[in-house]
Amino acid sequence: MKRTALIMAGGKGERFWPRSRVSLPKQFLSLTDDGKTMIQLTVERISPIVDITDVYIATNKNYKELVKQQLPGIPEENILCEPVGRNTAPCIGLGAAHIARKYDDAAMIVLASDHLIKNNEIFTETFKEACDVAEKGANLVTIGITPNYPETGYGYIKYDGSSRDGNAFQVEKFVEKPVLEVAKEYLADGHYLWNSGMFVWKVSTILDNFKKLLPESYEALMKIKDSVGGSNEEAVLNTEFMNLEAESVDYAIMEKADNIYILPGNFGWDDIGSWLAVGRIKKTDEDNNVVNGNVVAVNTKNCVIEGGEKLIATVGLRDMVVVDTPDATLISTKENAGEIKKVLAALRESGRNKYL
Amino acid sequence: MKRTALIMAGGKGERFWPRSRVSLPKQFLSLTDDGKTMIQLTVERISPIVDITDVYIATNKNYKELVKQQLPGIPEENILCEPVGRNTAPCIGLGAAHIARKYDDAAMIVLASDHLIKNNEIFTETFKEACDVAEKGANLVTIGITPNYPETGYGYIKYDGSSRDGNAFQVEKFVEKPVLEVAKEYLADGHYLWNSGMFVWKVSTILDNFKKLLPESYEALMKIKDSVGGSNEEAVLNTEFMNLEAESVDYAIMEKADNIYILPGNFGWDDIGSWLAVGRIKKTDEDNNVVNGNVVAVNTKNCVIEGGEKLIATVGLRDMVVVDTPDATLISTKENAGEIKKVLAALRESGRNKYL
Repeated sequence: MKRTALIMAGGKGERFWPRSRVSLPKQFLSLTDDGKTMIQLTVERISPIVDITDVYIATNKNYKELVKQQLPGIPEENILCEPVGRNTAPCIGLGAAHIARKYDDAAMIVLASDHLIKNNEIFTETFKEACDVAEKGANLVTIGITPNYPETGYGYIKYDGSSRDGNAFQVEKFVEKPVLEVAKEYLADGHYLWNSGMFVWKVSTILDNFKKLLPESYEALMKIKDSVGGSNEEAVLNTEFMNLEAESVDYAIMEKADNIYILPGNFGWDDIGSWLAVGRIKKTDEDNNVVNGNVVAVNTKNCVIEGGEKLIATVGLRDMVVVDTPDATLISTKENAGEIKKVLAALRESGRNKYL
Repeated sequence: MKRTALIMAGGKGERFWPRSRVSLPKQFLSLTDDGKTMIQLTVERISPIVDITDVYIATNKNYKELVKQQLPGIPEENILCEPVGRNTAPCIGLGAAHIARKYDDAAMIVLASDHLIKNNEIFTETFKEACDVAEKGANLVTIGITPNYPETGYGYIKYDGSSRDGNAFQVEKFVEKPVLEVAKEYLADGHYLWNSGMFVWKVSTILDNFKKLLPESYEALMKIKDSVGGSNEEAVLNTEFMNLEAESVDYAIMEKADNIYILPGNFGWDDIGSWLAVGRIKKTDEDNNVVNGNVVAVNTKNCVIEGGEKLIATVGLRDMVVVDTPDATLISTKENAGEIKKVLAALRESGRNKYL
């Protein structure tokens, strides 16, 4: 069966400000040492499984030019622009409609555009097997990440260890982000995986699930599908997209469907949720700093310092993040990095929108 | 008697990097809220006592243009350029030689160009009285600062409380920078003042002291004096300045002379030794931050943030100094601000001299 991929790239990613901006979100930034952007790495990673002409990018029209620049191999008609961001179910439905227009049926891999994978070989093996499982009849397949600490920021998926097919297990239940005590229990239990938001299914199957669980959305998707390539494509999309249920695919479909399989992903996954992650993924110096650009770091330890041409001199810093860009510099403790959103709120309030 | 002043302005002040540079040291910076530079404030402060045409600036030729720009009222012939910096005794001798060339005798006030005074009225009263004491026959007069904590970074002067003339007391001895325990004893004793490096004497008297204590220097000073205004002035200065003993006036004269008086200075003196002082002297916000420029400070307390046009966003900072300039940004803890010199050393070592 033909194997295709939908890469979701509509996110705005405020947590990498000031490097990320409304006009240049995280997926279009390079956050690793190799200089490639997150979305370029994602497309490259899936290339052993999916032809580049079968990779679809779901984004919005503000980012279409960025996608074209960074991914010149993707056919323009595969760049799907959502009229507005309405969560993952409409995004995935739009992708499925386009793929269904092109192929009678196909396997469909759904990925985020801004996650990091350390071992691409294991990633490939895992997704090939997930395609196999989906192609031979599982309703829906998801990839769960084997947890190595009791993270409270992710949802978990419990699998039934007694019901396996190769490396795939039947899903028992989806659970919300737990408190720490509960997360520790999940970790100890051994049958809970992190919900990573990566999926594999047949296009026909996911559309069947829409039909069953979100019938109005299904009708809208069929109209969108029929319009693809026609003169009224944009008009139909603009109208029908608003008729799609604005929910996450987890809530609207995965948690309600039966016969779901999960494969544990042990390929070194990181969603790079903030500048702190950069300290984990980039090379560090002898003082455990990540330092790039024109920097002099004196008595500075456990810091992320992302400079550029301008000289950044640090003295006595511990566990901090410094990010310099041509028009703005962020200086934050690692502990309080989550409060970057308050900076953005203050900028909005004071009318300094050019920095957003 | 005519009253004159010598303002010493040859210092390089690395501790205010990156705002201060080799080409723009501290005395030419504005570090207060009123926007005036330190040397402008110094000249303004002495103006109730000394005519502007009797104010002399000792500096070096690299800073002559800065002095002319910032102090257009000072006659150009009063800007004395030391061929090289050789400590305070040669600097003061040079000033005395020039004043002696102009006046048969005069009172001579010696001030640093980069100290802050909070109460100018008390300053004026104190220096008027110091002039009176010098003019009526004290050998040398110095101004000591009444200490309010056991500072270990300054020398102290002990006075004889039983021997007074108005507010002036006879000096008993000069003592070096003490360790903390000793500084505490000085504070408890009540007869120790900080050595501020501010002096008042007659020109004739200071030259007599040179003659007695540094006879070779005196000879050189007389040659310099005779050359002032002549065609060979620069040549004589370049030759004879090297014959001056390269010592501090404290060590070479004050500590060896007799009949020295000291006036306690209670006018709110601060030598603004580092960026930390800016936190004491500038207006603070409700979180005890000094914030200037294009800044967004989130959850930031007890910090000095000196920005400019570029946006500086801080998150979670405590007790830090952030100074942004067009080509360099300093980020330092207050505790480690003394290590700024290591930044400058690193810049020299790596050949990044344009930032010095």
